Amino acid sequence: MTNRIINFTRGMPPSDVFPVDELVDCSRAALQRDPSVLLQYGRSPGYPPLCAWLAQEMGIGVDRVLTGNSSLELFAFVTQLLLPPGARAFVESPSYDRAIALLQRAGAQVVGIPLEPDGVDLAALEAELRRGVPALMYLIADFQNPSGVTTSLAKRQRLAELAREHGFWLVEDAPYRYLRLHGEPVPTLLSLAPERVLHLSSFSKVLAPGLRLGYLVGPSETVTQLAAWAVDTYIGPVLPTQGMVYEYCRRGLLKTNIARLCELYRPRLEAALAAAERHLPEAKGCRPDGGFFVGLTLPGPVRMDELLRRAAQVNLKLSDGRGFFPCPTDGENFIRIPFSSVTPEEIEDGVARLSLVL
Amino acid sequence: MTNRIINFTRGMPPSDVFPVDELVDCSRAALQRDPSVLLQYGRSPGYPPLCAWLAQEMGIGVDRVLTGNSSLELFAFVTQLLLPPGARAFVESPSYDRAIALLQRAGAQVVGIPLEPDGVDLAALEAELRRGVPALMYLIADFQNPSGVTTSLAKRQRLAELAREHGFWLVEDAPYRYLRLHGEPVPTLLSLAPERVLHLSSFSKVLAPGLRLGYLVGPSETVTQLAAWAVDTYIGPVLPTQGMVYEYCRRGLLKTNIARLCELYRPRLEAALAAAERHLPEAKGCRPDGGFFVGLTLPGPVRMDELLRRAAQVNLKLSDGRGFFPCPTDGENFIRIPFSSVTPEEIEDGVARLSLVL
Repeated sequence: MTNRIINFTRGMPPSDVFPVDELVDCSRAALQRDPSVLLQYGRSPGYPPLCAWLAQEMGIGVDRVLTGNSSLELFAFVTQLLLPPGARAFVESPSYDRAIALLQRAGAQVVGIPLEPDGVDLAALEAELRRGVPALMYLIADFQNPSGVTTSLAKRQRLAELAREHGFWLVEDAPYRYLRLHGEPVPTLLSLAPERVLHLSSFSKVLAPGLRLGYLVGPSETVTQLAAWAVDTYIGPVLPTQGMVYEYCRRGLLKTNIARLCELYRPRLEAALAAAERHLPEAKGCRPDGGFFVGLTLPGPVRMDELLRRAAQVNLKLSDGRGFFPCPTDGENFIRIPFSSVTPEEIEDGVARLSLVL
Repeated sequence: MTNRIINFTRGMPPSDVFPVDELVDCSRAALQRDPSVLLQYGRSPGYPPLCAWLAQEMGIGVDRVLTGNSSLELFAFVTQLLLPPGARAFVESPSYDRAIALLQRAGAQVVGIPLEPDGVDLAALEAELRRGVPALMYLIADFQNPSGVTTSLAKRQRLAELAREHGFWLVEDAPYRYLRLHGEPVPTLLSLAPERVLHLSSFSKVLAPGLRLGYLVGPSETVTQLAAWAVDTYIGPVLPTQGMVYEYCRRGLLKTNIARLCELYRPRLEAALAAAERHLPEAKGCRPDGGFFVGLTLPGPVRMDELLRRAAQVNLKLSDGRGFFPCPTDGENFIRIPFSSVTPEEIEDGVARLSLVL
């Protein structure tokens, strides 16, 4: 039974889910229509028709849009440009390990604010603000990586107020936002405090990660500054893929693809929640309404090294929970279950193995 | 006669030169053959078959190859990783303006070494080495941007010796190398001092700049470090375009395309040299054997601001020569004529206008 490896480390779409034929045709159509732009030097903010499409989709001016070769790199630009040396940066605790790493690489003093099932602990946040206002606070308000938490509207409103009042940036990373599997969307931080929010997203989760096509929305002066930084770094983003994605969006295929992905992921989320309830009834976590992840806090003292070793013995690959916490010891008993790239059967089997080794 | 604008600012291929139909078919073939790799998360160093093709082409191990979203950005990674704070960095004077800008952004103290028609002035270089060894020296040994100079074999050998002796990196940027229009190739710095050279190149000049597909070759430990830095920045480069370019190379189309480009550029280079001889007999410069540029040093005192203003009045757009010099005043009388994206007639007309306003 435990012969087959089950991989709970990969927060990615399954590799057979990409609409290959549609993308091939969109690539052809885009290159044939606009070769002298898509194959020539271009400049950030990116392929103009794609920037215009994104702006229209979000109901904002095109001067507020910057595209790039992944939203992660756009966040790297933010850390390079907007973090003074030694600045404080707040993140949810736990948070996306690569975002924490980029903040650390930029020399920031990274402070984790404990995450509750409806968003960060506001009392802890306000206490930290009294200790020192950060240059920015990075958060994933929808179906957070790694916890699955969605920040409530009330907490978003308070975050917007605090950012305004104290003058710090909210970096809202929203790659999972359109993968809502249950319930109604909550307004973005961007909509609540447009002048204090840098909103990041990408086509990685709704279309294909290999495109590395990310975008940032913010106040136009800041977008202009970030675009100039991008031009100085690489002149412009990779364009043929921007043409392909623009064509895909223009044809109205993105909405259909998102609906298809939600149909695929919904039973996987259900399987993860059911398996957790059955096999790990003592573990704590929210019930995510979408995204890729269910995060669980295991009861009792856990030694992560030992847990990973014993899981490997039953062919279960786990991510080290400590990697998601700015203070690694806080993650000794945290487990992330990414349900996107595994079948409901594998999820059930994997969680059963996890309970076995606990 | 002077109604039509002639643009001498753009160092790019003409926009109608791209092999669109071949690229469309290569994109299709690559995506259909390998969708689960090209559309999924991948990691630097890049698409494995492309890395392997590049390694084989250069006769080196694949562990020495790193691809990225432009060679400029790979150079940015080099400046971020290998330049200690306040380090000295040497460049040819003049040099590529964007490379100088990235060195300055990284906080380097940029020192220009005067460029002669066969490469940098070695006496000046050795004098600067006595003042302080740099972390790196950036140079374009083949058909330099902006001068058109090719560094002689003797000077390359001495550069290799000096880099070894004093322990600094030679960053050899070689995007024009395969656009040799006359004469025989000179061995790369990479071949002369593989342990001290980071060799950069790209598909921008031999295929299409919009791909932003660059690569770096260096010692494997350094490539591993740079690849880890790239992974931390954006996980992996854009992959569908890497698949398309791999397919293009695999089919043997690149060599044909380069031959076609050389046929196109050769009469343009001749036109630029003939026009300079006819209209600006006093101007000094080398006779480039390839690349995109003829660089000219105008006689007598020139006021660049005045020159640019008067050129604009006759619909001639020029790059500000000062931008190519680490010490801008050195470039008051320097003019770059990019012959790649203008016809022989436009070149003749443009240089005639230039002599008119001088």
